[in-house]
Amino acid sequence: MAEIIVAKSAGFCFGVRRAIKILEELTQRESCVYTLGPIIHNPQEVERLKGLGVKTLNGHRPREGTIVIRTHGIPPREERKIKAFGLKVVDATCPYVKAVHEAVVSLSKEGYFVVIVGERNHPEVIGTLGYLEEVGGRGKVVEDLKDLKEVFKEERVGVVAQTTQREELFKEVVGELSLWVKELKVINTICNATSTRQEEVKEIAPKVDVMLIVGGRNSGNTTRLYQIAKSLNPNSYHVETQGELKREWFSGARRVGITAGASTPDWIIEGVIKRVRELCS
Amino acid sequence: MAEIIVAKSAGFCFGVRRAIKILEELTQRESCVYTLGPIIHNPQEVERLKGLGVKTLNGHRPREGTIVIRTHGIPPREERKIKAFGLKVVDATCPYVKAVHEAVVSLSKEGYFVVIVGERNHPEVIGTLGYLEEVGGRGKVVEDLKDLKEVFKEERVGVVAQTTQREELFKEVVGELSLWVKELKVINTICNATSTRQEEVKEIAPKVDVMLIVGGRNSGNTTRLYQIAKSLNPNSYHVETQGELKREWFSGARRVGITAGASTPDWIIEGVIKRVRELCS
Repeated sequence: MAEIIVAKSAGFCFGVRRAIKILEELTQRESCVYTLGPIIHNPQEVERLKGLGVKTLNGHRPREGTIVIRTHGIPPREERKIKAFGLKVVDATCPYVKAVHEAVVSLSKEGYFVVIVGERNHPEVIGTLGYLEEVGGRGKVVEDLKDLKEVFKEERVGVVAQTTQREELFKEVVGELSLWVKELKVINTICNATSTRQEEVKEIAPKVDVMLIVGGRNSGNTTRLYQIAKSLNPNSYHVETQGELKREWFSGARRVGITAGASTPDWIIEGVIKRVRELCS
Repeated sequence: MAEIIVAKSAGFCFGVRRAIKILEELTQRESCVYTLGPIIHNPQEVERLKGLGVKTLNGHRPREGTIVIRTHGIPPREERKIKAFGLKVVDATCPYVKAVHEAVVSLSKEGYFVVIVGERNHPEVIGTLGYLEEVGGRGKVVEDLKDLKEVFKEERVGVVAQTTQREELFKEVVGELSLWVKELKVINTICNATSTRQEEVKEIAPKVDVMLIVGGRNSGNTTRLYQIAKSLNPNSYHVETQGELKREWFSGARRVGITAGASTPDWIIEGVIKRVRELCS
């Protein structure tokens, strides 16, 4: 019998768990529940929610029902537009993302030019920029140090980050800015779920015979966990479900490590654990 | 005739030039003028000022006269003590240093724990800490990243620097802090005279046949300029005055570079330029 080490940080982060719960509760009360875009990057979980009656909106406008804003949030003008259609809106924006919205609004009101360290086309960043526009604020999305050039002429700069931003880049941007602008106010809005998960896989992967990363192949953060694991342990595998596990991977294995991305539901992780136990017995 | 390139940034910085002018003007009106410690690290200039009637106080208390606070500044409690002796005080603290005092006071009033990036035993830092104490503020001097450990538990941190601090360390400290504390407010108080002077010697030294660095041997910033020059051009020399120049250094030289530390007066630099012209003609 092999020892199975499951990462404490595996699976849903706080914001995703909360959003799924909101969705599940809604389906018990209402018949038409929509999400704006797929709620998470996990095909199995999206399929399960579809079974409960959750539909994904991709541009078309429903006549009635409730629209759930997903964890990334949306610009306030979008929210008003949906409400103007006469549709009910339930906000499942992650509270950590709401904190970014509040930070850019308060920095802007204090007169700072706002730097958002993040990806220009990420839905979370698009939403945050919407909140900045709403108060007539000035700002810029910074994807790498080169984007800072036109910020250096500003005297007072406020900095926030996309919640899933790399800490290394955030630190570099803040350090550079500190030398160029007169006054800098930094509100660290990085959510530590992502970095904690990455730190944990770095610890577990080298200590086990087989390392499993569970999650959607379309999930960026899951893929990144797999890349880290593979670099530390050649016997690392990325699987979406228990069905992909192969008996030969576990031949002679005494320790098996398991982790999962922020969009991987517990029921999938539990299925994988159960199947590993069978294959190792 | 050799071409002589004098660094634009050579010699007195703004704060030192201002302090010397204050002293000179005082000696024209008053008979007893004292400075708290030697005004600058340049023996020839201190000697010249002595000739004008400026005495250096080293602990003893004069019965009458005017005391000039040097560029580094002093804690307000020291200033009160001197005034309580019935002595007149003239403040020649560098305005850039005064800006640091103001920054720590305002950060502290806004509720920030104040980090001062600098040298614990430097008179400027001791003065700045005095201003922080004065408003009951909390803070810490950070000499390197190890000193940050106990700052990480703070939620709101304000950062300033000793005016002559290395930019590299300041940037690292600010970057590290941005990841650990919830809110960070940075006021960059580094004076750029020092870094400008270092950048300029890096440009000139490789382009000339002989590079001269003029300034007190007890001057830290002058010695640092010499070290930089020497690493880029083996024909680099550190001299205090024109009397130390040797004819053989200039044999066949077509270009001579000259720079000087922040505490080197113009009259010494001019003497060196004149003598170089004679030796090269």
